Amino acid sequence: MYPQSLQKLIEAFRHLPGVGEKTAERYALAVSDMNPETAQEFSQAIQEVREKLTHCRICGNLSDNEECSICTDNSRNKRVIFVVQSAKDVIAMEKTGEYKGAYHVLNGLISTSKGIMPEDLNIDSLLERAKDAEEIILATNTTMDGETTAMYLHKLLGEVCPEVLVTRIAHGLPSGGLLDYADEMTLAHALSDRRRMR
Amino acid sequence: MYPQSLQKLIEAFRHLPGVGEKTAERYALAVSDMNPETAQEFSQAIQEVREKLTHCRICGNLSDNEECSICTDNSRNKRVIFVVQSAKDVIAMEKTGEYKGAYHVLNGLISTSKGIMPEDLNIDSLLERAKDAEEIILATNTTMDGETTAMYLHKLLGEVCPEVLVTRIAHGLPSGGLLDYADEMTLAHALSDRRRMR
Repeated sequence: MYPQSLQKLIEAFRHLPGVGEKTAERYALAVSDMNPETAQEFSQAIQEVREKLTHCRICGNLSDNEECSICTDNSRNKRVIFVVQSAKDVIAMEKTGEYKGAYHVLNGLISTSKGIMPEDLNIDSLLERAKDAEEIILATNTTMDGETTAMYLHKLLGEVCPEVLVTRIAHGLPSGGLLDYADEMTLAHALSDRRRMR
Repeated sequence: MYPQSLQKLIEAFRHLPGVGEKTAERYALAVSDMNPETAQEFSQAIQEVREKLTHCRICGNLSDNEECSICTDNSRNKRVIFVVQSAKDVIAMEKTGEYKGAYHVLNGLISTSKGIMPEDLNIDSLLERAKDAEEIILATNTTMDGETTAMYLHKLLGEVCPEVLVTRIAHGLPSGGLLDYADEMTLAHALSDRRRMR
């Protein structure tokens, strides 16, 4: 029903997460309304991400260079490694401004249901890095796959470098959380991981 | 915080309607995860819309050619003209499968608050077309600007071609509408425009 060029763009937008027919139409029509320079920049931005963006050789984070801006930042403590599922998690953590160590991005989680095995993840280089580390903070999600991956890494790190401290991020009630709205797992963890008040 | 290429793409996505920081990040990361061919097609689709897509010389609808697929379709009755604000409205109407006439896309509505005047709209060519028409159906939205525009066109068409029938789409309760949820304007119209039951 749409002109072919617009139809193709609608289909392209549908590859984005959570974008259905209606939204894709809206986006494509917005592109058709853009001034030519903005549309040109948009098209080029996709092209550049495709051509330039890669994974940091050291930590697996997204980067335009061989090594990411965190791994090349000498003010950060490279002996503390915060292990996450994806580059999104690095950004989320960086936004807190609370963390001054390094990261390691697994680029996935072990998932028996999706058939994702440890060898599909960026784990070998973590073991390499762990040897010189002080602390490895396992910060995968507190979902089933996240817990499985954390458990697996905990065991593996214990074998490869038993002298390195391995910790897991706290699992409890979120800020502003209501007890009577929290699920059982969250409450159970909030209880078992309770800490002494100073 | 993101690599520069990704940051630029996030900014590009923010030009889309209703896309905030979080959604733009999600989309840009999805592009970084796409296989290279899909990303290439996406970039190219934007490029093609920019280069090829234009407004139909006759009706103002979006088209890859000088004349759109509806204006060049000889099975349609070109003497009935359905006047709408934008190409989106053409698609919405086409999806009903109920209409076999032609369209005229104004590409906007008269709006005193936004400073959009009749001369900013695709009206001259409508007057030209109206001379050979049987019926002009004014199908702008039932919003303030839509009503203003319909009223203006009604008056103008009455002067330019007084012999042509000018109608306005029905304004009343939508399908599945609940009386006690309808606003006053809708209810007032539903009453004043009531029709005799057969």
